[in-house]
Amino acid sequence: MTLAILPSVKANSLHIMKAESPGPTPGKLVPKIGQTVKILYGIYIILTVIEVVFLLTAGMSLYDSLIHAFGTAGTGGFSNRNASVGAFGSVYVEIVITVFMLLFGVNFSLYYQILKGNFKTILRDEELRFYVGTVVAAIILITLNINGKVFFSIWESIRYSAFQVGSIITTTGYATADFNLWPVFSKCILILLMFIGASAGSTGGGIKCIRILLLFKVIRREIAKIIHPRSVYTVKIAGRMIEEETLSGIMAFFCLYIFVFAASVLVVSLDGKDMISTVTAVIATISNIGPGLEIVGPVGNYADFSVMSKTVLSICMIIGRLEIFPVLLLFTPTFWKRVNI
Amino acid sequence: MTLAILPSVKANSLHIMKAESPGPTPGKLVPKIGQTVKILYGIYIILTVIEVVFLLTAGMSLYDSLIHAFGTAGTGGFSNRNASVGAFGSVYVEIVITVFMLLFGVNFSLYYQILKGNFKTILRDEELRFYVGTVVAAIILITLNINGKVFFSIWESIRYSAFQVGSIITTTGYATADFNLWPVFSKCILILLMFIGASAGSTGGGIKCIRILLLFKVIRREIAKIIHPRSVYTVKIAGRMIEEETLSGIMAFFCLYIFVFAASVLVVSLDGKDMISTVTAVIATISNIGPGLEIVGPVGNYADFSVMSKTVLSICMIIGRLEIFPVLLLFTPTFWKRVNI
Repeated sequence: MTLAILPSVKANSLHIMKAESPGPTPGKLVPKIGQTVKILYGIYIILTVIEVVFLLTAGMSLYDSLIHAFGTAGTGGFSNRNASVGAFGSVYVEIVITVFMLLFGVNFSLYYQILKGNFKTILRDEELRFYVGTVVAAIILITLNINGKVFFSIWESIRYSAFQVGSIITTTGYATADFNLWPVFSKCILILLMFIGASAGSTGGGIKCIRILLLFKVIRREIAKIIHPRSVYTVKIAGRMIEEETLSGIMAFFCLYIFVFAASVLVVSLDGKDMISTVTAVIATISNIGPGLEIVGPVGNYADFSVMSKTVLSICMIIGRLEIFPVLLLFTPTFWKRVNI
Repeated sequence: MTLAILPSVKANSLHIMKAESPGPTPGKLVPKIGQTVKILYGIYIILTVIEVVFLLTAGMSLYDSLIHAFGTAGTGGFSNRNASVGAFGSVYVEIVITVFMLLFGVNFSLYYQILKGNFKTILRDEELRFYVGTVVAAIILITLNINGKVFFSIWESIRYSAFQVGSIITTTGYATADFNLWPVFSKCILILLMFIGASAGSTGGGIKCIRILLLFKVIRREIAKIIHPRSVYTVKIAGRMIEEETLSGIMAFFCLYIFVFAASVLVVSLDGKDMISTVTAVIATISNIGPGLEIVGPVGNYADFSVMSKTVLSICMIIGRLEIFPVLLLFTPTFWKRVNI
């Protein structure tokens, strides 16, 4: 957004863009940055409008529809009901929001490819496959786990499992059930999804699917390297080689994500809240989800934390939203020096 | 050990050595591998004998002394008492074991440098500094946290905090107190130490200090890179440049450690035990510590887990002990092909 409305901040805009864009090349769609940004915003607005229309047909008021469509589009998860989306008790509303949450978790440049008719690019997109695969696997595993334990029909289980998986992996944070009461296995999967997050170039947070995918590929390469130390192995995405520097940047990002997470947990744990609340509060804020487990679960809130913890958690939210490195830049003296040149 | 007693397995020994040695160059002390290994075993035996003598002077029986010295030396943490080292209730015994646990968590090649009189190398050793710094910081923080809450004199707090920090960071696993009952902040620090682990080239497990230290340096470099994209930055340890390939291997190791941890937690969580027991059971086995928290805490055990979980946790112990990559090699078909050539 900064790039779209502040054309004067050119000197640093490429810096920021590079720092914020995960995975391989920043993916400019058209040569001009401003143009690219406008296309992406167009897609964003069109998808939001479609969702509003769907929600209106579900019998929601215009006000509620707008709030929930905006909450889905920005993966913010803001609802004007205490019980979140669950308050409407409508299967149709839940299906609409589930589908749109997942749509907003896809890399927006893929929608541009659809507009241009490049369907081949989409089918070949490895991140999309990884994202869809993770979502499907998580829905199936959680459905099997909660079915018969929390819900007593397979359809109910699928309904709540799909909504929660969509909400958590896209880091939206809406809830239709108190997943804090689900079995440990389901909760562990949800926590894992909190770390993974949505696709790069979507509105979601988290580590992002493309990074996790590339980390798997790097690990596979390391194993190959030990066996044949003299061979040269490259990591590819959709047939295109990824530069070593990009890979090492992604690995460093992952390490930093975990370090920031660990450091924040330490500070927040000084409050003496139970460990699960402490840990999930931190990951739910770094990945910009909202609800965690126990006292910060879907029916709880963050009110009980001390001022220091709230400050740390607020910083986590900002750090997570801006992908860590750009925020750290602000604290680096040399960054400011360069701006003045 | 394999390298010392099986000189015939030459073809793969260098493979294994490279895969198992973390951080920069495998650190051969003398040109011949067999010789190096014998020196390291010599140091191991001498340190163990000294500890036995100290424990005997503490009034322990020869049998108890041997068991606890062996348990310290191998950072195995095996005790013939249910209450572990706490059963002796002797401050002197605890001090001896604390000191020796920490000594066995130091890179053994540093002891060789002492024998050779290279005291400068030791003072300049960045991993040692990091290790000592982490230990001291953890002891201070936990002491302040438990003092007045669990123990009511500062000396008692230091005594139990120092022992537990030494036991956990070196992945020994002895206990003198039920740290499961300590405040959340102290428990979080201990869990963090479980991940960090001892120094490379020691008998301890975990990710190892040198790797964590290098990860910090890589992250610092990534930040510098974003500011000055065209400059070339190198990562150094004690003035020596670390190769890019080594760095990327270490980052891949860290990612893999976290992935294996997450995957194991998922499987073990199927048992439906509480989340803290599940998570700490996995980290306590991957890092070869032994006790975790809650049902696997210092006064608990792993008996309650299902056969599947026990199998996964056993694999975790083996994977952790062998530093993951060599174990994964065994499952790679090309590794076996190469052996047959």
